[in-house]
Amino acid sequence: MPTIGVDLGGTNIKAALVSGEGRILRQTGCPTALPRPPEAVCEDILRLCGELIRQANGPVAGVGVGCPGTVDADSGMVLYANNLGWERFPMGRFLEQRLGLPVALANDANAAAYGEAVAGCAQNAQSAVILTLGTGVGGGVILDGRLLTGYTGGAAEPGHIIIQQAGEPCTCGCRGCLEAYASATALIRQTRRAMRANPQSLMHALAGQGPVTGRTAFDAAAAGDAAAQQVVETYIQHLAVGVASLINIFFPQVVGLSGGIANQGEALFVPLRRAVEPMVYGRAFSAKQTRIVGCSLGYQAGLVGAALLARGPG
Amino acid sequence: MPTIGVDLGGTNIKAALVSGEGRILRQTGCPTALPRPPEAVCEDILRLCGELIRQANGPVAGVGVGCPGTVDADSGMVLYANNLGWERFPMGRFLEQRLGLPVALANDANAAAYGEAVAGCAQNAQSAVILTLGTGVGGGVILDGRLLTGYTGGAAEPGHIIIQQAGEPCTCGCRGCLEAYASATALIRQTRRAMRANPQSLMHALAGQGPVTGRTAFDAAAAGDAAAQQVVETYIQHLAVGVASLINIFFPQVVGLSGGIANQGEALFVPLRRAVEPMVYGRAFSAKQTRIVGCSLGYQAGLVGAALLARGPG
Repeated sequence: MPTIGVDLGGTNIKAALVSGEGRILRQTGCPTALPRPPEAVCEDILRLCGELIRQANGPVAGVGVGCPGTVDADSGMVLYANNLGWERFPMGRFLEQRLGLPVALANDANAAAYGEAVAGCAQNAQSAVILTLGTGVGGGVILDGRLLTGYTGGAAEPGHIIIQQAGEPCTCGCRGCLEAYASATALIRQTRRAMRANPQSLMHALAGQGPVTGRTAFDAAAAGDAAAQQVVETYIQHLAVGVASLINIFFPQVVGLSGGIANQGEALFVPLRRAVEPMVYGRAFSAKQTRIVGCSLGYQAGLVGAALLARGPG
Repeated sequence: MPTIGVDLGGTNIKAALVSGEGRILRQTGCPTALPRPPEAVCEDILRLCGELIRQANGPVAGVGVGCPGTVDADSGMVLYANNLGWERFPMGRFLEQRLGLPVALANDANAAAYGEAVAGCAQNAQSAVILTLGTGVGGGVILDGRLLTGYTGGAAEPGHIIIQQAGEPCTCGCRGCLEAYASATALIRQTRRAMRANPQSLMHALAGQGPVTGRTAFDAAAAGDAAAQQVVETYIQHLAVGVASLINIFFPQVVGLSGGIANQGEALFVPLRRAVEPMVYGRAFSAKQTRIVGCSLGYQAGLVGAALLARGPG
């Protein structure tokens, strides 16, 4: 039976009717139009769901919502969503009462991770750690087909493992988090620093009059620019430390990376795997190794994952 | 129905008949007498199990073995046990064939963690991360009553998350692992360094002619010695970084610490909790917080946990 997935972002609300296997059947959406109170945004979500339910030609089993920020999946409560400006909103209950359907609420990165684990890069894997390298570093962990959620609220926040004590300041208020080194934002900061220190670097020409992006250093490095190669190497080493730490906790079948930086493909993955391997505990004695791969669902992962979470466990 | 737990150490083999609730009914043991081939050590394990089975006055449901090193719980294979000098020994199958009982094999720190989660400091908790601060830093993660085991071999190795890139060398060959900062071995190394730098420190008198131990700095700090206080503060800050990273992944109900250093009690836990709190992601918005506590089963955790693992899932 199909379910509906909703991907609630700071800019757009996307909603899709998704088959039980994770295939998008129909998609719709509208602007989030912030700032708005959560009830007003939920009215739009209800309207989009109604539209998809009418088009479904049959029953819909439930609705899953991926929401930015800290959510308590058990109670369906948005605890704190910085990007939306919301605090303690019982979104799950609100939508359930109006829809008359079960509603699953998850952090958006957790939902996207679930989509990749069930229908994307880690399909059929026993376990997967998914990292999204974007403005921040989000992600999720899926063990035996179930999304890891914690007791005290959200889980997992792999972007907030600390890879360097007293290191770079992180948006969370702490220092040295993986996010402060491995997000696209961090890569851009590292690129800008290297550009200031290297006025002759090709990075200046590549960035041109436009903004420095997560691609600037990778593109210049591919063209042989030494300063850019140093930026890329250092970035990959930081990311490798985080990936290795996560492997040494979960020893998962798959680590999947998504987000703009992961689109670098093998220019990222070949050196990343080489950097991670020596840090994997007991690697020499294990017949099985974790696969480190790119995610495959792209921007649809959140929609698909939210919908699949609404199927319920099993 | 009772089960048998076996705690295989580098010095002694301990075995106990354990009730389904985790109570030790009878205990026995013998020296490990290394170096010996795994088959010879297993003969002793079989003899101890036979003794306990005869004393059980009824059926025994199975045997659980906690073994140092990297084990593949699924296949019952000891992949590599440095302390025992063994490599790739199918211990589970060997014991099962001779005993005619199901045998569960686990890493010893994982077994102890399971004991604490089911019958010790995290009894009835939805989830727990247990860390043993000993010669190394071992541990285990229990989610919904199940021990977290990975796909590629052992899991979890929380001592080998990296808290400092290019930091202190670790016994695993990597640098900057939590173990290299938070083990008793690391604390002793940090204490010795501070003693060399501070010839007037009370730590010299406290250590006397005996060896420096994990208590030396804590005892001198409690007596007001400034150099020792600095050692303890730095140690706790390192440990806090590791604990916070694990919380930000699992958001567990309980983090339990065991091993000699955890016996410091509130002299450790009060400043540790204070150091961890600001590093917990989204803490301000969550109604529930992770409890950080001392383990309660002491050296029996491994025996009890191994026995409880032999009860099978559920």
